Amino acid sequence: MSDPLVLFMPSGKRGRFPVGTLVLDAARQLGVHVESVCGGRGMCGRCQIEVQEGHFAKHGVTSAEDHLSAFGAKEQRYAEKRELMPGRRLSCSASIQGDLVIDVPQDLVINAQVVRKSASGRTIERNPAIHMCYVEVDEPDMHRPLGDADRLIGALCRDWKFERLEIEFGVLAGLQSTLRKGNWAVTAAIHDEPRSGPPRIIAVWPGFKNEAYGIACDIGSTTIAMHLVSLLSGRIAASAGASNPQIRFGEDLMSRVSYVMMNPDGRADMTAAVRAAVNDLVARVCVDGGVNRDDILDTVFVGNPVMHHLFLGVDPTELGGAPFALAVSSAVHARAADVGLAVNANARLYTLPCIAGHVGADAAGAMLAEGPHRQDVMMLLVDVGTNAEIVLGNRARVVACSSPTGPAFEGAEISGGQRAAPGAIERVRIDPATLEPRYRVIGVEQWSDAPGFAEAAGSVGVTGICGSGIIEVIAEMFLAGIISEDGVINGKLSEKSARIVPHGRTFSYVLKAGESPISITQNDVRAIQLAKAALYAGVKLLMQKQGVAAVDKIRLAGAFGSFIDPKYAMVLGLIPDCDLDQVGAAGNSAGEGALMALLNRDYRREIETKVREIEKVETALEPDFQAFFVNAMALPNKVDPFPRLASAVTLPDRAGPSDGDALPSGRRGRRIRT
Amino acid sequence: MSDPLVLFMPSGKRGRFPVGTLVLDAARQLGVHVESVCGGRGMCGRCQIEVQEGHFAKHGVTSAEDHLSAFGAKEQRYAEKRELMPGRRLSCSASIQGDLVIDVPQDLVINAQVVRKSASGRTIERNPAIHMCYVEVDEPDMHRPLGDADRLIGALCRDWKFERLEIEFGVLAGLQSTLRKGNWAVTAAIHDEPRSGPPRIIAVWPGFKNEAYGIACDIGSTTIAMHLVSLLSGRIAASAGASNPQIRFGEDLMSRVSYVMMNPDGRADMTAAVRAAVNDLVARVCVDGGVNRDDILDTVFVGNPVMHHLFLGVDPTELGGAPFALAVSSAVHARAADVGLAVNANARLYTLPCIAGHVGADAAGAMLAEGPHRQDVMMLLVDVGTNAEIVLGNRARVVACSSPTGPAFEGAEISGGQRAAPGAIERVRIDPATLEPRYRVIGVEQWSDAPGFAEAAGSVGVTGICGSGIIEVIAEMFLAGIISEDGVINGKLSEKSARIVPHGRTFSYVLKAGESPISITQNDVRAIQLAKAALYAGVKLLMQKQGVAAVDKIRLAGAFGSFIDPKYAMVLGLIPDCDLDQVGAAGNSAGEGALMALLNRDYRREIETKVREIEKVETALEPDFQAFFVNAMALPNKVDPFPRLASAVTLPDRAGPSDGDALPSGRRGRRIRT
Repeated sequence: MSDPLVLFMPSGKRGRFPVGTLVLDAARQLGVHVESVCGGRGMCGRCQIEVQEGHFAKHGVTSAEDHLSAFGAKEQRYAEKRELMPGRRLSCSASIQGDLVIDVPQDLVINAQVVRKSASGRTIERNPAIHMCYVEVDEPDMHRPLGDADRLIGALCRDWKFERLEIEFGVLAGLQSTLRKGNWAVTAAIHDEPRSGPPRIIAVWPGFKNEAYGIACDIGSTTIAMHLVSLLSGRIAASAGASNPQIRFGEDLMSRVSYVMMNPDGRADMTAAVRAAVNDLVARVCVDGGVNRDDILDTVFVGNPVMHHLFLGVDPTELGGAPFALAVSSAVHARAADVGLAVNANARLYTLPCIAGHVGADAAGAMLAEGPHRQDVMMLLVDVGTNAEIVLGNRARVVACSSPTGPAFEGAEISGGQRAAPGAIERVRIDPATLEPRYRVIGVEQWSDAPGFAEAAGSVGVTGICGSGIIEVIAEMFLAGIISEDGVINGKLSEKSARIVPHGRTFSYVLKAGESPISITQNDVRAIQLAKAALYAGVKLLMQKQGVAAVDKIRLAGAFGSFIDPKYAMVLGLIPDCDLDQVGAAGNSAGEGALMALLNRDYRREIETKVREIEKVETALEPDFQAFFVNAMALPNKVDPFPRLASAVTLPDRAGPSDGDALPSGRRGRRIRT
Repeated sequence: MSDPLVLFMPSGKRGRFPVGTLVLDAARQLGVHVESVCGGRGMCGRCQIEVQEGHFAKHGVTSAEDHLSAFGAKEQRYAEKRELMPGRRLSCSASIQGDLVIDVPQDLVINAQVVRKSASGRTIERNPAIHMCYVEVDEPDMHRPLGDADRLIGALCRDWKFERLEIEFGVLAGLQSTLRKGNWAVTAAIHDEPRSGPPRIIAVWPGFKNEAYGIACDIGSTTIAMHLVSLLSGRIAASAGASNPQIRFGEDLMSRVSYVMMNPDGRADMTAAVRAAVNDLVARVCVDGGVNRDDILDTVFVGNPVMHHLFLGVDPTELGGAPFALAVSSAVHARAADVGLAVNANARLYTLPCIAGHVGADAAGAMLAEGPHRQDVMMLLVDVGTNAEIVLGNRARVVACSSPTGPAFEGAEISGGQRAAPGAIERVRIDPATLEPRYRVIGVEQWSDAPGFAEAAGSVGVTGICGSGIIEVIAEMFLAGIISEDGVINGKLSEKSARIVPHGRTFSYVLKAGESPISITQNDVRAIQLAKAALYAGVKLLMQKQGVAAVDKIRLAGAFGSFIDPKYAMVLGLIPDCDLDQVGAAGNSAGEGALMALLNRDYRREIETKVREIEKVETALEPDFQAFFVNAMALPNKVDPFPRLASAVTLPDRAGPSDGDALPSGRRGRRIRT
C-alpha cells in the first residue's frame, strides 16, 4: 500500500509521506511555506492548518480526523495559553495518518477598504524574505571558545536547517547582551533573499519574539501610499497616504527633472523631501498600527522611474531626454538605512524592477498585482499619470510602452482644472435636449440640481474640475452634440443655449455660471484630445504588436482609474472597445504589487523574470505611432469601430466633417518626444 | 603528439594546452592568478610574465623563445608607450608554442626594512579580493531599455566571465555620470569574496584605471601599524605606525576592559579613539605613498580580542572574565564605512578570525605569516604582550593558548621601567668579575663605556629601562651570579661591589648611579620571574599537549620578539631549550599576516580553516598549569634541562638553595585567572 497522499491548499502542492510524518515537515519538503517562529515547540501558533473534510474519503467512511493524529499535548498547551480556533491544528504537532487535503490559512484577503476597488478579494500566499527563528544557543565554553555569534549561527543552522548563515555587522555590537538577557534563548530575524547573498541574521531579540513587520510603499508623483503589514500573518496593521512633497518643486515629472537640471541641490532637495515624507508615513502607520518601528524588518517600494530614482538618491536627468536611460532597471536590494529609513537599523529594502525609462517599478507592481502574464485572455493594463504606462498581454506574451499623455487628465493645463480635492467637480451630466448640466462636487453629497446642494456646497465651494470631471464633461458634451467628432465646440448652438458662448475665435461651454464661473474652452477640449490620443495611440501600438483588433479585459490602475467611469473613458476613446463588464478599476495595484513582493519572495522572482521578458516598445521609435496619434484625435476615434460602446450609450447621430481646426504641429511636437 | 606542457611558477600549477593558447587563458584555466585590468587589451601591463629558459628543452636545441609566440603588435605598442623590461612578455599577447616554464613575477618580497627582521624574504602570491576590470559598456538602447547598471553588469559578465554580479547600492548614484565621462568605457572594482556573498561592483571610474590599494593594519594595545599596498602589484606604497591612543584609558588590556565596565561611555570613547588613530594613519600613508584615499578599496585588520572588539564597536566586557566569550570568533566581513574608515566609500573590511578569548586575530595573523601549520617540524610561535599568545604545532596538529604574563615585559610594574623610546636602556652587559655594567640606550650609538657616550647621551638622557633591557639585565645578573636560580639578589655581594645595595629587607642592583639612578630591585626580579613563569608554563602546557619534550623552531613575534636577544630569553627560561640557530624574531608577523590576507584571499581561507582546527587550551582549566607555573619561577627553570643553552653562554657554577623568599600566593592569584 502506498504512503498517504497529502495535498496542500491554496498552493495545490502535493506529495506522499510515510504515516507519522509531521504536517510541518511534509509542507517544508514540498516547499509549501508554513510559518513557524518557535521551530516546532508549539509556542508561536504560526503553523496552524485546517483539514478539509470529505476529500480522499472515497473508499469507506473515514473522517478527516482519522487521517490526522489526535490532538496532542503541545496543541493542548497552546490552546490553553492562547487560543486555537475550532478545526485548527498545529502542523508542528499533527502528523499524517492518511490521505489529507490541508488548508494553509493565509489570513490575508486584500481588504476592499484598504486597497480601493480591488478587483478581487485576492489571497496572497506568504513566503516573506524575513524568517523569525527562535533558538536556544549553547553557552560559552572555554574548551571550545567559539564567539557568541558563531554559536548563534551554529544553533540556527542546526535547528532551522540553514546550510550557511551570515550575520549583519550591525547586529554584532548588541548581540552579547541580548543573548544574556534572553538567558541564551533568542529569536533571530533572518533575511533570506538569495538575490542579495546568503541568508543573514539582521536582528536578534531576547527570548521568544512573535512579531515582525514590513512596509509596502508606492511613491507616486502626487501621492505616497503605505501599508504596514505583519510578515507573520499577512494582516495589514495600518495604511496611510500623503501628498508627495516634491510637488512644490514641480507638479509633474518633467518639471521635477527640470528642477534637478536647473538647481545644483535640486536632486538632493527632492530626495530629502520624499524620504522625509516616507518617514512621516512610517511614523504614522506605526502609531496607527501600534507597532514599534524597530519591528519593521523589510520594506518594498514601487514608483515611476523618476520617483524611484529620486527616492534612491539617483539623479533622474537621464530620464528627461532620449534615450531615457535608467540608472538601474533590475530590482534593487539594499539596506533601509541606505535611504535613511527610520525602521529597524538593519532592515532591508527592495524595489521592484523598472520596465523601461518611462515604465517604472509602479507599472511592474501593477503588472504583478493584475497579472496580464497569468491570463489566458488579452488583458490591457493602463496606469494614467503624466505618462500613461501601458501593458498588454497574456500568458504567452506581454508588451509594454509609455505614452506621453501630459498632465491634462490630472486637471493641469485645463482652464478650470484642479487636483481631486474638496470643491472639485468630479461627475457631470448634460441634458442632450436642453444642454443644461448637472454635476457632483467632491465633499458634497448631492448633485448640483438636487435640493440642498447650494447649502451643502456653500462650505466647500465649487472651485474647479478634476480629472474624472473633465473626462465626463467632454464625453457628455460629445454625447449631447456640443462637440463634433473632431472636437470642435459647435458655435451654432449658442443660438439655442446660453451655455455656449464665444471665446476669442472659438466657443466655450459654461459648466458653472455666476460667480467664479467654470467653463470648458476649445483649448481644454484640445488638451484632452491630445492626452487621450496619446494614450490611445500607445494602446493601439501595443495591439498592433500583439496582432489583435480588440482586447478582452481592461484594468485601469491608479487614482485616475479608480475615479473614472469606464463608460466615459470608452466614449472619449481613451480605451479600446471592450465589454464594459470586463473593464474595471485596479485600485492602487502598484502598491498591491509592492505588498505581494513584501509578503512573498516568489512574487519578486516572478516579476523580475517577467520584466526581463516583456517586449518594451518605445513610442518615439515607432513609425506608426504618429499616425495612430493623429487618428486617435477624433471622438471616439476616427478609425476604430466601437461596436460594444453602442450598447452602453446613445452615440449622437451625425457625420461631422472636420472644420479644419487642425492642431498646430508645434504643439504636438512639444508633447511627443522624438 | 601531446599538447605542450606549461608550468607556472611560483605556484607550480601545470597543464597541457593546445598550441596557440594565450598564456593568460592558460593561467586562468589552471587557477593561476595573473592580474589583468584591461581584459587582454594590452593596456595595463599587469599580466607580465617571464619565461625561464632551458627547461623542457631536453630534446634538441630549442630556446624558450621558440616555445612562445613572437613579440606581438600589442606588446610592441605597450613597450613603446610604457616600458617592458627585457625578458618580460604580456600574457594577453604571448601564446603557447611549446613546453614552457613561466614565471609570474609577484613583485612583492616582504621588505626587511618594512617588516623588521622578517625571517625570510617571503614571497606572497597575489589573489586579492578586489579585481579591477576595464570594460566597454553598451550604450543605452531604447529598443532594449536596460538600466546603465544592468548594461555594466552585462558587459562585465561577458568580458570577464562573471557568472553573477551585484552592484553595491552606494555605486548607483554616481554611475550614470561616470559612464558618460568615460564615454562608456569604465574600470570597475569588483569585490569577489565568496564568504560575503556574490561578486559585487564596489566602485567605478571613467576610462582606464590602473591603480587599486588596500591597507593592512595591526591594532596592538600599544602600537598601531599600517601598510598601504598596491593590490595590483603587491608593492608597499607606505608604512606607518602610531601609539594606540587608548593608552590614556589604561596601559594594559584589563585596565581598558575595566574602563569600559566603569564608564558608561567607555566603550564608545575607546572605539572612537582607536578609529581616529587608524584614520590618522590612513591619512599619513596616503600622503607618504602619494595615494588617493578613494583608491583604497580593501582593508584587513588584526588585533588581540579586546582591540578587535573595541575597533569593531563591540563591548569587550565579556572578555574580562570567565568564560571569556568573544562576540564573534570567525572572520568578520563588513564595509569599511561600518567602522567609519575614511577610505573609498564602498571599500570592504575584513578581520582575521580570533582563535580564543585571549588568542586573537593578531595571533591568527602571526600564525598565517609564520605558518606552524605548514611545518614538518614542531614550531613554537610566541607573541608577548600583556598576554602571551602561544601557538605550538606542525602540519599534523596545532595547539594554542594564552598565558597572563602581565605587562612586566613591556617595562610596566618595573621600578625603572618604561616603554621602548629614546633614553631607554635596551642592552645590558655585566662583567662577572667586577659586577660592573655597561649598557646601550635607544637613540645613542655608543655603549655606555665607550668614548663619547656621555656627550651623545646628553641630548636624550638615560630615562629608564625597556622590556629588552630588563630581560638582559636580569639574565646578566643571573649569569654574573648576582641573583640565584631562585631569583634572590645575593646581599653578600654588597661587600664586594657598591652596585649591590640594601633596599628594605632585600637588595637592589644599581644599573646606573648618579643623578636619576636606575636600579633593579628584588621586586623587579620577582615581576620578571612571574611573567616568564607564566609564559613558560603556557609553553610547557602546549608541549605536554603535543607530547614533545623539545621544540624544533621558535619564532618570537611582536615588538618584544624583535628586540629581545634569544640567548637571554633562553637564559631566563622564557622559552624552552632549542638550537639558538632555530630561534628568531618574527617581526610584526601579525601585521604580515594581515598583509597576506589582503593580497590573497586564499590565505583568508587557509587561516579560517586552520583557526577552526586549532586545539584551544584554556590555561585556567588545566590542572597542570599551576605546577608548571611554580616550577618555571626558577632561572632558567627548575625542572627542564637546557642542554643546548650551555653552548651559548657560560652558566654560573653553583647550587643555590632557595632562600625561602617564596611568592605570596595572593600576588600569584591576581595574575592567574581561574
